[in-house]
Amino acid sequence: MLHIDLIVLGKLKEAFWQEAEAEYLKRLKPWAKIIIHQLREESFSEKDNIENIKQKEAEKILAALDKIKDAHVIALDEHGKNFSSIDFAKQINQLTNQQINNLTFIIGGPLGLHESILKLAKLKLSLSSMTFTHQMARVFLWEQIYRAMMINTGRNYHY
Amino acid sequence: MLHIDLIVLGKLKEAFWQEAEAEYLKRLKPWAKIIIHQLREESFSEKDNIENIKQKEAEKILAALDKIKDAHVIALDEHGKNFSSIDFAKQINQLTNQQINNLTFIIGGPLGLHESILKLAKLKLSLSSMTFTHQMARVFLWEQIYRAMMINTGRNYHY
Repeated sequence: MLHIDLIVLGKLKEAFWQEAEAEYLKRLKPWAKIIIHQLREESFSEKDNIENIKQKEAEKILAALDKIKDAHVIALDEHGKNFSSIDFAKQINQLTNQQINNLTFIIGGPLGLHESILKLAKLKLSLSSMTFTHQMARVFLWEQIYRAMMINTGRNYHY
Repeated sequence: MLHIDLIVLGKLKEAFWQEAEAEYLKRLKPWAKIIIHQLREESFSEKDNIENIKQKEAEKILAALDKIKDAHVIALDEHGKNFSSIDFAKQINQLTNQQINNLTFIIGGPLGLHESILKLAKLKLSLSSMTFTHQMARVFLWEQIYRAMMINTGRNYHY
């Protein structure tokens, strides 16, 4: 069975995002064992050094990664690769065919991920050319993973 | 002031999507007058002719468009143009600079929009190379419009 770890900076503030995530986690239950590692995002202001903030967040992410066995890291990155949903499903299928069943997705905070995290990622994934909130990215990602499961098992999924 | 009409096929079923939309409509209130034209999607099964279904939906959309004055139509289409959020904001800015203040966005049902609707659109917009539910597309679009307002008025919007 697929094991999915999601490392995220910051929480889902609004109740509707929490409920949207809960819905997709419920739908994904037959398909994957999921653990969410929710780390506290660094607060920052205009005068802070952005690199320092990203560095601090990277250290937290590395500490979380350290506890995940055989993590195949997929980092969400606005400069990452664009996939169609079908190609994303194929990508997951190819990994599981190679016995790579532990997928670790990482979503950064508002400033994005530090270079050191992007470097260790096996894949940098862009969900859209548009920028959107990391809360929405989280729900969007669950939906794509669920959609990939439906595609890979030949199920109908009218949206 | 900006006038935004949204023509959609089908409703937001889950309460969390309704709440997400309500949140963005609230945030957009100072920036735009918004009317949502929610049309009933055609039900269909495997054996139906997809073209016929899309044609029927197109007729409903045309009837709704008929009632909107000076509609500048932007159709959401998976084969449409990808924008960054900044370019999307610029696009809206350029339109309003030309006194084009009545933007009509159209989101189709699960089958997508009929060719006749795509043809009359001034812009075909793709939110992502990935396919996602039209419920999510609707919330995503509001977020991008809100983000565009923040960008165009030089406001900070940390996400």
